[in-house]
Amino acid sequence: MKNQFITYQHIVRLDQQDPLATKRDAFRLPTEVIYLDGNSLGAMPEAAAERAGELVQQQWSKDLITSWNKHHWIDLPKHVGEKIGRLIGAAPDQVISCDSTSVNLFKVLSCALLLQQAQNPGRSIVLSQSGNFPTDLYMVQGLATLLGEQNCQLKLVADEADIIAGMTPDVAVLLLTQVDFRSGRLLNMQRLTELAHAKGILVIWDLAHSAGALPIELDACQVDFAIGCGYKFLNGGPGAPAFIYAAKRLHNSLSQPLTGWMGHHSPFNFDKQYQKAPGIEQFLTGTPAILSLSVLDAALDVFADVELTQLRQKSLQLSSYFHQLVQQHDCLQSLQLLTPLNEAERGSQLAYQHEDAYALCQALIKQGVIADFRAPNILRLGFTPLYLRFIDMWTAVEILADIVRSQEYTKAEYKLKHKVT
Amino acid sequence: MKNQFITYQHIVRLDQQDPLATKRDAFRLPTEVIYLDGNSLGAMPEAAAERAGELVQQQWSKDLITSWNKHHWIDLPKHVGEKIGRLIGAAPDQVISCDSTSVNLFKVLSCALLLQQAQNPGRSIVLSQSGNFPTDLYMVQGLATLLGEQNCQLKLVADEADIIAGMTPDVAVLLLTQVDFRSGRLLNMQRLTELAHAKGILVIWDLAHSAGALPIELDACQVDFAIGCGYKFLNGGPGAPAFIYAAKRLHNSLSQPLTGWMGHHSPFNFDKQYQKAPGIEQFLTGTPAILSLSVLDAALDVFADVELTQLRQKSLQLSSYFHQLVQQHDCLQSLQLLTPLNEAERGSQLAYQHEDAYALCQALIKQGVIADFRAPNILRLGFTPLYLRFIDMWTAVEILADIVRSQEYTKAEYKLKHKVT
Repeated sequence: MKNQFITYQHIVRLDQQDPLATKRDAFRLPTEVIYLDGNSLGAMPEAAAERAGELVQQQWSKDLITSWNKHHWIDLPKHVGEKIGRLIGAAPDQVISCDSTSVNLFKVLSCALLLQQAQNPGRSIVLSQSGNFPTDLYMVQGLATLLGEQNCQLKLVADEADIIAGMTPDVAVLLLTQVDFRSGRLLNMQRLTELAHAKGILVIWDLAHSAGALPIELDACQVDFAIGCGYKFLNGGPGAPAFIYAAKRLHNSLSQPLTGWMGHHSPFNFDKQYQKAPGIEQFLTGTPAILSLSVLDAALDVFADVELTQLRQKSLQLSSYFHQLVQQHDCLQSLQLLTPLNEAERGSQLAYQHEDAYALCQALIKQGVIADFRAPNILRLGFTPLYLRFIDMWTAVEILADIVRSQEYTKAEYKLKHKVT
Repeated sequence: MKNQFITYQHIVRLDQQDPLATKRDAFRLPTEVIYLDGNSLGAMPEAAAERAGELVQQQWSKDLITSWNKHHWIDLPKHVGEKIGRLIGAAPDQVISCDSTSVNLFKVLSCALLLQQAQNPGRSIVLSQSGNFPTDLYMVQGLATLLGEQNCQLKLVADEADIIAGMTPDVAVLLLTQVDFRSGRLLNMQRLTELAHAKGILVIWDLAHSAGALPIELDACQVDFAIGCGYKFLNGGPGAPAFIYAAKRLHNSLSQPLTGWMGHHSPFNFDKQYQKAPGIEQFLTGTPAILSLSVLDAALDVFADVELTQLRQKSLQLSSYFHQLVQQHDCLQSLQLLTPLNEAERGSQLAYQHEDAYALCQALIKQGVIADFRAPNILRLGFTPLYLRFIDMWTAVEILADIVRSQEYTKAEYKLKHKVT
C-alpha cells in the first residue's frame, strides 16, 4: 500500500469499513474541528458530561456526605483502577487511580529504591532516557534531595541500544516511558523488562502516551511498576487522576512514603500508627478528588466493548495514511518525520520536524486542525482511534498543504511570541 | 445569656437579624435536611454547579486543549490560592492550591526538615499532638522511612501545656492542627508559633478544620507553613484540591522534593534539569485536577463579600445556642460536651461524648439531621455559618431530644454493625 496513490474514494471506503466508526458518537466533539491532540487532552465522552451533571445535581448537592457510601465514592480509586487494568494487561488488584502521574511516580520510585536498598545494597542508579518526559526526570531529582546522591542518582542515556548498554550492576531502577512524548517512538516493553530483570534491575514504565492507545501486557511482561495518565488516551478530562500499577508479587515487600490515611489498613479507625493496606490500596494517600475521579470512571466506559487489537490496528492505519498523504504532496517534503515508520516502534502519534513548526501549528489551529508544537521544532499530531475518522486525515493533510503552498504560515500572526529555549 | 431560657421566638428573631442570612441562597441544600456535617464535606454552592456545567459544556468539550490558555486553566492553582489567601491572612504570592492535604504536608514537612538540617543540624523531632488527624502523623512516619529516624522522628504529646513543654532543642518542626477534628478545640496560633520560634522551631499549621470557618492571621502570626483542605468549610466539592501556604521570606531557601514539571521555573521549556519556580509555584507537582480545581474556584466566590469576623461571630453563636438548647432538655444531660465552652478555644463544631453516640448519630441522620460519629463515642456536629440558620439549631436539638426521650436510638437498626476499634 505504501507506494500506491491514495485516493479520496479509498479514504471514504476506509471509514465505511471501520468497525470502530460508531465509537465517535460516544464523544462530543466540536464541529469544524479536527482534533489531533487527544494525546495531550482527550476529547469528552458524553458519559463524562452526564456523570459531571449527576455529581452536582444529585450526589454532592442532595446526598452530601452520605455519597461516600451511597454512591461508592470510597471505592472509586479501586473501581477505576480495575477498569484501567483491563486496558494495560493487569489482572485484578494491581491498579489504582489517584493523584497525578508525577506524585505516583514518586511513590513507586521510592518503593523500588527502598526494595533494592534492602535486597541489593549498593545499587543507587535510576536509569532513564534523556528524552523522557521531564517530570519523570524531575521526580528522580526530587527524591535524590531526600535520599542523598549515594542512594538515588539519575543516569540518562539516549536510545534503546544505550539503555541496554547502560544496565550496569549499580543500576537499581530502569524508568522508561513506553511511547516518547516528542517522537512517538514505542519501546519494546517485553525485551527491555526481561533484560533489566536479568541484571537485577527493577522496572517502572510510564504509560502516559500508551495506555488507551495500544494493547499493553504488564503482567505478561512481568513489569514491576507502572504509572500513567488519565487525561490523554483515557479521555478522563483535564487533569484527571493518574494511576499506579504494582505487581501483586511485590505488594508485601513495599513501603511507599506518601503514607496518607486512605492508604491505611483501616482509615476510619483513626489509629496513631500507620499500617499499610495489604493490597494495591497501600498506594493511596489523601482524600481522592472525587469530581475528577468519577468523571474519569464514566469516561472509561467508552472502552468497555473495545477490542484493543482493533484499536491498535486503526491507530496505526490512521498515522500510516496521514503520512502517506503527506508524502503525496510535494509542498510537504520539507516536513521531516521523526517517528519510526516501523509499526513495532510507533505509538499513536506522528512528529515532524520543520524549522517553522510553531507557525505551522498555529496556522493549523486557526483553520480548525488542533495539533501541537514541541520545542524547538516539532509539529506533533496525535491519533485517537476512538473518535478520529480516516477522512479527518485527508482533510487535515489538505489544510496543511494549503497552509504551506500559500505560505499562510509565514504571516506575522503565527510567529512565536516568546522564545522557547 | 447563658442562664436565660431560650425561646423559639428568640431563635426566630436571631435569623431575622442575621446579616449573613441571605448567604444561604448561594447554596443548594436538600429540603428536609439540617446539614451539620459541613466540616466533613461542605454543601454545594450554586456557582459550583454552574462552573461544573461550563467546564463540560464549553471548556473541555468545545475548547479542548486551548482552554489551558483561553480559560486560564494554567493559572488556576495560583488564582485559587490567592482567593484562599484572603481567608487565612496571607498577603499575595504565598498560597497555592493543588494535590491533597496529605501530599501537601509531605512537601512542606520535607522543606522544613531540610531547612533545619542545613541551618540547625541535630534537630530531627517533629512535635505534634497524639489527637492530631491521623494522616498528619502518618505523613511524618512516611517521610521518616526516606530520611531515616536520625533525621525525622515523630514525638506526640497531649494538650497545649505538653506542646509547650515538648519544645526541646532537638525539635525541628512543630506540626499542629488549629482546630482538633474530634473535639473542636481551637489552639492559640499566635502564642504557640511565637514560643516555637523562640526555640528555633519551624511551625506548620494544618487549617483543615479552620480555613473558611474563622479568621486566620498567618502573616501576622509569622507562621512558616500551612496546609489545608478545600472540601470542608471552603465548600469546594468532594475531594477538592487542598492548599499550601509558605511564608515569602522562606521561598528562596526551600527545596520541596515532589519536583514535578508544574513546579519548574519554565515547564514548557522541557529542560532535563529541574529548576524550581521562584515563588509559591515551586510547590506545584503534576498537572492539576482542573475539573475539581475550577469548581473550587467558583465555590470560593461565595466568600467574596463575607466579613470573616461576622462569620466567626455567627459560628460561635450557632454552637453556643445549640449547646444552650441541649442544656434546656433534661433528657440530654447524658451528652457530655468535649468542646471547650471558652470561645477563644472553640472552632466551628461541637463534640459530645455518649456511650451510644453511633446509634444517636444514625437516628439523627434517619430523621434528616446529618451529623457524624467519631470513634469510639463522639457525636460531632459542624456549624457552617454561611448556610445554617438559628432555627436549624432549634429543630436539630428538638429532634435529638425526641430521639433520646423516645429511646428511638436503642432500636436494632441503629446499632454499630462493624466494630470500630
